[in-house]
Amino acid sequence: MDRKRLTELLRGVAAGETPVEEAVQGLQALPFKELPFATVDLHRQLREGFPEVVLGEHKPPDQIIAIVSELAKGGGNVLVTRVDPDKGEIVAAALDDAHHEADARAVVLRQKPLQDHGRGQVVVVCAGTSDLPVAREAVLTAELMDNKVALVVDVGVAGIHRLMHHYDTLSSASVIIVVAGMEGALASVVGGMVSRPIVAVPTSIGYGASFGGLAPLLGMLNACAAGVTVVNIDNGFGAGYAAALINRRDPI
Amino acid sequence: MDRKRLTELLRGVAAGETPVEEAVQGLQALPFKELPFATVDLHRQLREGFPEVVLGEHKPPDQIIAIVSELAKGGGNVLVTRVDPDKGEIVAAALDDAHHEADARAVVLRQKPLQDHGRGQVVVVCAGTSDLPVAREAVLTAELMDNKVALVVDVGVAGIHRLMHHYDTLSSASVIIVVAGMEGALASVVGGMVSRPIVAVPTSIGYGASFGGLAPLLGMLNACAAGVTVVNIDNGFGAGYAAALINRRDPI
Amino acid sequence: MDRKRLTELLRGVAAGETPVEEAVQGLQALPFKELPFATVDLHRQLREGFPEVVLGEHKPPDQIIAIVSELAKGGGNVLVTRVDPDKGEIVAAALDDAHHEADARAVVLRQKPLQDHGRGQVVVVCAGTSDLPVAREAVLTAELMDNKVALVVDVGVAGIHRLMHHYDTLSSASVIIVVAGMEGALASVVGGMVSRPIVAVPTSIGYGASFGGLAPLLGMLNACAAGVTVVNIDNGFGAGYAAALINRRDPI
Amino acid sequence: MDRKRLTELLRGVAAGETPVEEAVQGLQALPFKELPFATVDLHRQLREGFPEVVLGEHKPPDQIIAIVSELAKGGGNVLVTRVDPDKGEIVAAALDDAHHEADARAVVLRQKPLQDHGRGQVVVVCAGTSDLPVAREAVLTAELMDNKVALVVDVGVAGIHRLMHHYDTLSSASVIIVVAGMEGALASVVGGMVSRPIVAVPTSIGYGASFGGLAPLLGMLNACAAGVTVVNIDNGFGAGYAAALINRRDPI
Amino acid sequence: MDRKRLTELLRGVAAGETPVEEAVQGLQALPFKELPFATVDLHRQLREGFPEVVLGEHKPPDQIIAIVSELAKGGGNVLVTRVDPDKGEIVAAALDDAHHEADARAVVLRQKPLQDHGRGQVVVVCAGTSDLPVAREAVLTAELMDNKVALVVDVGVAGIHRLMHHYDTLSSASVIIVVAGMEGALASVVGGMVSRPIVAVPTSIGYGASFGGLAPLLGMLNACAAGVTVVNIDNGFGAGYAAALINRRDPI
Amino acid sequence: MDRKRLTELLRGVAAGETPVEEAVQGLQALPFKELPFATVDLHRQLREGFPEVVLGEHKPPDQIIAIVSELAKGGGNVLVTRVDPDKGEIVAAALDDAHHEADARAVVLRQKPLQDHGRGQVVVVCAGTSDLPVAREAVLTAELMDNKVALVVDVGVAGIHRLMHHYDTLSSASVIIVVAGMEGALASVVGGMVSRPIVAVPTSIGYGASFGGLAPLLGMLNACAAGVTVVNIDNGFGAGYAAALINRRDPI
Amino acid sequence: MDRKRLTELLRGVAAGETPVEEAVQGLQALPFKELPFATVDLHRQLREGFPEVVLGEHKPPDQIIAIVSELAKGGGNVLVTRVDPDKGEIVAAALDDAHHEADARAVVLRQKPLQDHGRGQVVVVCAGTSDLPVAREAVLTAELMDNKVALVVDVGVAGIHRLMHHYDTLSSASVIIVVAGMEGALASVVGGMVSRPIVAVPTSIGYGASFGGLAPLLGMLNACAAGVTVVNIDNGFGAGYAAALINRRDPI
Amino acid sequence: MDRKRLTELLRGVAAGETPVEEAVQGLQALPFKELPFATVDLHRQLREGFPEVVLGEHKPPDQIIAIVSELAKGGGNVLVTRVDPDKGEIVAAALDDAHHEADARAVVLRQKPLQDHGRGQVVVVCAGTSDLPVAREAVLTAELMDNKVALVVDVGVAGIHRLMHHYDTLSSASVIIVVAGMEGALASVVGGMVSRPIVAVPTSIGYGASFGGLAPLLGMLNACAAGVTVVNIDNGFGAGYAAALINRRDPI
Repeated sequence: MDRKRLTELLRGVAAGETPVEEAVQGLQALPFKELPFATVDLHRQLREGFPEVVLGEHKPPDQIIAIVSELAKGGGNVLVTRVDPDKGEIVAAALDDAHHEADARAVVLRQKPLQDHGRGQVVVVCAGTSDLPVAREAVLTAELMDNKVALVVDVGVAGIHRLMHHYDTLSSASVIIVVAGMEGALASVVGGMVSRPIVAVPTSIGYGASFGGLAPLLGMLNACAAGVTVVNIDNGFGAGYAAALINRRDPI
Repeated sequence: MDRKRLTELLRGVAAGETPVEEAVQGLQALPFKELPFATVDLHRQLREGFPEVVLGEHKPPDQIIAIVSELAKGGGNVLVTRVDPDKGEIVAAALDDAHHEADARAVVLRQKPLQDHGRGQVVVVCAGTSDLPVAREAVLTAELMDNKVALVVDVGVAGIHRLMHHYDTLSSASVIIVVAGMEGALASVVGGMVSRPIVAVPTSIGYGASFGGLAPLLGMLNACAAGVTVVNIDNGFGAGYAAALINRRDPI
Repeated sequence: MDRKRLTELLRGVAAGETPVEEAVQGLQALPFKELPFATVDLHRQLREGFPEVVLGEHKPPDQIIAIVSELAKGGGNVLVTRVDPDKGEIVAAALDDAHHEADARAVVLRQKPLQDHGRGQVVVVCAGTSDLPVAREAVLTAELMDNKVALVVDVGVAGIHRLMHHYDTLSSASVIIVVAGMEGALASVVGGMVSRPIVAVPTSIGYGASFGGLAPLLGMLNACAAGVTVVNIDNGFGAGYAAALINRRDPI
Repeated sequence: MDRKRLTELLRGVAAGETPVEEAVQGLQALPFKELPFATVDLHRQLREGFPEVVLGEHKPPDQIIAIVSELAKGGGNVLVTRVDPDKGEIVAAALDDAHHEADARAVVLRQKPLQDHGRGQVVVVCAGTSDLPVAREAVLTAELMDNKVALVVDVGVAGIHRLMHHYDTLSSASVIIVVAGMEGALASVVGGMVSRPIVAVPTSIGYGASFGGLAPLLGMLNACAAGVTVVNIDNGFGAGYAAALINRRDPI
Repeated sequence: MDRKRLTELLRGVAAGETPVEEAVQGLQALPFKELPFATVDLHRQLREGFPEVVLGEHKPPDQIIAIVSELAKGGGNVLVTRVDPDKGEIVAAALDDAHHEADARAVVLRQKPLQDHGRGQVVVVCAGTSDLPVAREAVLTAELMDNKVALVVDVGVAGIHRLMHHYDTLSSASVIIVVAGMEGALASVVGGMVSRPIVAVPTSIGYGASFGGLAPLLGMLNACAAGVTVVNIDNGFGAGYAAALINRRDPI
Repeated sequence: MDRKRLTELLRGVAAGETPVEEAVQGLQALPFKELPFATVDLHRQLREGFPEVVLGEHKPPDQIIAIVSELAKGGGNVLVTRVDPDKGEIVAAALDDAHHEADARAVVLRQKPLQDHGRGQVVVVCAGTSDLPVAREAVLTAELMDNKVALVVDVGVAGIHRLMHHYDTLSSASVIIVVAGMEGALASVVGGMVSRPIVAVPTSIGYGASFGGLAPLLGMLNACAAGVTVVNIDNGFGAGYAAALINRRDPI
Repeated sequence: MDRKRLTELLRGVAAGETPVEEAVQGLQALPFKELPFATVDLHRQLREGFPEVVLGEHKPPDQIIAIVSELAKGGGNVLVTRVDPDKGEIVAAALDDAHHEADARAVVLRQKPLQDHGRGQVVVVCAGTSDLPVAREAVLTAELMDNKVALVVDVGVAGIHRLMHHYDTLSSASVIIVVAGMEGALASVVGGMVSRPIVAVPTSIGYGASFGGLAPLLGMLNACAAGVTVVNIDNGFGAGYAAALINRRDPI
Repeated sequence: MDRKRLTELLRGVAAGETPVEEAVQGLQALPFKELPFATVDLHRQLREGFPEVVLGEHKPPDQIIAIVSELAKGGGNVLVTRVDPDKGEIVAAALDDAHHEADARAVVLRQKPLQDHGRGQVVVVCAGTSDLPVAREAVLTAELMDNKVALVVDVGVAGIHRLMHHYDTLSSASVIIVVAGMEGALASVVGGMVSRPIVAVPTSIGYGASFGGLAPLLGMLNACAAGVTVVNIDNGFGAGYAAALINRRDPI
């Protein structure tokens, strides 16, 4: 297509229909709009099935509302992450069709029905109940990116038989997200059980020498099971997004 | 299949062909061999297309040679990672069909022809020439796991037009491995250019406040582009392995 | 016993009383319920004398109350750790037989009289008055696990004669828990005085370069006295639990 | 001038007009007032075009008001940095001619019209909207030091075409300030695009393994593009000050 | 005994057999030799069954030989830890009855037959073959302190069925030492399987973000299984010593 | 004196006035009360001129008041450190003769007139106004330990001539306390100017990469001027105490 | 010029001299060679006065020689940094016109006479003799980028009068590079003396708690003097490069 | 004296003996040679009793020899620190009157007999034999600065009665230097025993989580005993120097 646009422009010049000066200006603008790498434009990606995403943590409610309103004009779904309960209520109340998913610390504005673009199921495994908000952010993100998602909770390595109870779910997953705080060993154990891509999310849930999630982060990076990759501490959104890319049936 | 083995065993008991005591012993052994979670057994995985892997760094040559000889009996390919030039020469010389891939700091013993089990191409992008050994370890790992792999070198963010030159390769990849030291910004930039799963490998190549790869590790974990997941510093093998799992056409 | 259950199941099959398909299902379920490693099930352990434990820090009062109510049905004692004063009052008020142990930041629901399962006395040594909540959590945990416990307070190394005053108590202990912040030197000094297993608990009580308990943690890990092992910062519960295991007369 | 004062003093002695003892005292005082290194006196610098600067973060409003009132007597402009909204309002209300620049978390008291002392334009590039307060502090500082300043916002590396849209502005800058949190890759990318001095400001905007700005700080220090220098985390003032020194047409 | 000595001394005074001045001198010396806390004297402990221990790492061979010769005069066993192969050979060759235990990086001089002073068996579990030297140091230490010891090797969490194969050994242990590098998850998993005191030893075996053993150290300190205590990185001696104290039938 | 008490006791035995058993008990108690090292007893030290010190940070007002009341019975001065304004007011109001020194975040109860026990003057040098509370805590501590103290403020290294203005004060000091945040360079500069013992106090005043005082702490530990020793971050009390010991005319 | 090339190409099309297909290919190549952001191409920069730079640290001599030979064809100067003495000798010997600058750990191949493109003099201030290699790398880099450079050595803050001896040199500099290890206080002191842009280079020269240069790095980032910016530890090249950009009379 | 020189100069002018221009030049030179703060000049200090000190670690033997030869011309003693055995031998052999103190890793050139300038004795307490080189460097430094010094070795806190054996020596010291690695608890214990200024030296002797001396450094900074100040890791010289300043009878 880019080649086509370029060819048209040049044919216009060759045909004398486009003045040289006008073509120079058009070509200088191209790199930022139409050349291949312009597909980096997030907005275009989103139109193809990805939700618009707003990071809510450092923004006041009115700013979030304004941004979501603007993004919603595109007709797609909009996800606001990292909103505390109060902010979530305010934002959801101010926007039609918006829903406050308090468990995931998110607000979702749905304008398009979900489809299933995935090769299989994304399974989110969550070590402890305190890790749930992060896990639910991952679930929500992957769902909004048109994936089937299953959530398995409270299966820490200190009671490994509970994890094995879910062996079938794990082994039939297309990609697994492991959410764990403390020492983060769950990623290694799951990675040792099944041959699936695993996206590990360390959480800041922990005490003392957890140092805000450093312990599970290092644990997951040093996981003795191959196939484990890691995202930032508490980054449920990033894990859900990566899992959706991995699971996508037809690449964009 | 596990279910099949169990059924056979029990049918033997039901038919009076297998004494109860013998069956009890067989069943007690099962959890470690045949029960569902026994698929964690690396050896079974490997028979299905994955190479046997030996971490060479802390092992003397004779130990490596003995292990590889044993593993080779399985008939699969064997990969020895992290061998310095001298060790690589010794090991490769002592083993039939083994080849010293010095650029990847590896020894490979190939016994099966490579197949293409992938959904598409794995692309390994390498920021600087000093990062090449890590990148080549990733390439080799993914290839031995039956993937087509392309390697793009010397495309650091300080000369971003060189990276754009490879836009077509990147945008048609099934999964991208980004290998970078220094500040590790390449992962963010590639992640912003294409909507593909990206496995980022920070390298220990750097100076001063790189602190042995801590700088690119933190940089990649904080990448502003979604879809980036991270493996341990210099862990080319882990990245290649994860990319192969992601790219696999039919899950194992 | 496991062997017994397995034998029974197989005898049923051999006798034609158990259909093969039913036995297959029963056996697949076994690993998670009845095979040896199923003893990891915390609930079974607790029935044998250990309390149910609920980590209260990240849970709202109503969630804690619901969990404790459920656990209490088992008839054992229940310990809720890390509750601040307000939360402790609310939880204790809502539950019959529950008591708010504010000094230990805990709520205890006692349903069984304490017994003495220990080989000897657990002695908890506490460096400063600010470390007391952590020490009391250790005392409470060990007591609920049926141990005799003595608490020695305010015996920092800067006044070592005060510590020596307690020499008899220390030298007759079965296991000693040392709770200290600042530089954590007390573990080394006690470890040099008596030949007993010592569980050291660094606390986050300190200033400046304590870095939230890092200083005593490193100090205790580097203790020049042999026989000292360490738990996480402020982890009085973990120390009490480990001491109870060490002191237990008859292993479970 | 110093030489002149010294000469006068000695001539006074030589002429018998200045008693020896009085000259000794005068000379002993000189190092702190008149000798060359006395130009380190901030007050003198400021009279030559630099604003007086008050760091507002650890000071109560009344203390700030008193200091600014005193400094304002010099007739120059006064900049108060790092004031939260409430403090800013109080301080600005109490001082004539003072203005609360809430976006930059600053209060400015202007007494002199701005001049243009720069060789060219200072361009401040800001990665994300959350980094804006830091960027605006840099803009304000550079402006008060008599520079033309342009601000380019929301041009993170995940959408690199947006950055390229500003290529003309960047390439014509005299000095560029790059303000970025997350992984801080923007400094490397801008440094690779243009051959200009770049002052990089890591911000504490980030999550988890950002560790309060450590990630972008290390990223910027390890920037693979030459010409990048770094100031402290969130130090917009320092960046603006350094950029003003770099851009200054005639050194002071 | 101390009380006995004190009584004898005072009786001597009371009987007029010991001059007061002589008794004063004797009593002043007491605190450092005979008073209760003088049991901190390592030499006395050792005579009661513990080996003399020499840390070999920072000492030249001749210094080690001299120290061991001196200590051997006490008639007990002597253990030299952390000697590299060359040093071990030199030291063992120079001392009668000394043996170089190269696998444990130790030299042992045995003068007394081993006895069994333990309540049960000490089990040392070792995650990977690279962790073996640390595990063997733990085994050797516990054995020299008169314990029965079993060693279980190569049972990392990535292949958890291998670990379960040793369930009987683990569940019948009196105390378990877990030696693991990488992410150190083995301690959590073993701690979840059995209710026994667990002494965890993080090793420096790892790569990149292991940071010399920091990753498994933090992982073990944050272990989600209760009952796990931790010693310093690579400190097999400390773990073996602590396990021996825990396992000791009759306290010293 | 200890020798005297011992001698008396033994004479009692020799004279038949003290039964042997009673003497044994008395002697066993001695090490903790009367033997030389019992001078570690803080209370005795204080009677000789040092104030009683209560660390107020982690204690509620009523607990502080009770402790101070108890300590005051000894007749000496009492110092309560690290009290915030509210706590200071409450404590001071509840105690006769107590004074809230808000600038030093302390409460002082004076019962004895100050004397001058020092060899010379203690000089406290403070880099910035934000560091003043720490500096004032040092001043107050040294004064209560009977030293003459001078305070020099706002003499950071960025305006080194201001520091030189105080050269006479510095060079005539007996010991100098340097209080500085930011990069802590003031300790090196003062250490290079005068040959006096310097106790450096890093403060947590700083921004971003100060990391809570880590930057000046490391700076002071690495001071290129010999003669500089360092105390914990913000530890004005510790610096004042050490300076008082250094300056003391007649050792205690 | 880019615009000129574009115009020529389009005129060729308009004139029928360039076939459309050929022009399309030419234009697609442009972004990587000729479009505005293609000025990131190092080679073009260098032709305008900057040397080609080869980082020698991780490259074997033959690789360096090959790269330098290739780069030298461009006719410009070539700088090889971070070569140890042996490597430097080998490389210099193999290349005509190359010189081994051992003091700066560099090899220089000069093909063009130096010019003076600077606005003034770059002054490099070096704290200790051990910091000299880093300082000389900075000097060499700035010289090869056509600047007049002065080097001031051994002027640490512990002897501040030595620094003042160079006041005239410092105050007349266009830009100052401060190279210091230990606590790095020199940057603050120089920054307080003169109103010039200061590029600070922390060095890894130090002991103990220097932690490989972390101490001066943090010190310089927290410098209390405004106008100080920082480069990576030991990065003399980066400082020289940045100083050259700052000092450049006519921007490129 | 400075005042005297100034007065003389001015009298020369007043008397017409010194031309004004000549006096101007002389006065401008004064700040760096003769004005009060010029006492920072190390050479002057040394002439008054302090040795010249050369840090030998980063300097080649010939450079050390040249420097020492130059310094020796001043007639004072010269101390070279941190020389390994080979370097020490070479340097000592090349210099008359120089002696290689291998135990302290130092070379000493004595030209003046030692005097006793101290108020009392400096006592150096050393925890373990591995810490001895650091302790001996402290001893040597203090001796060369004309102090009586006593060395107490091998008195770690794990055998606290050995430390008490030296109570008399400790309690009669003027200043105490505590040298300890591992957890560094010795400083706290000694600080609790005696009311003397204590200079603590953490050493890098340790294992694993000592992190090169970080553990004892943090431990000493957090010492619960007041009166403890700390120098850099392994900095025996710095401790000896500080102790000498503290002990000095008549300040310089």
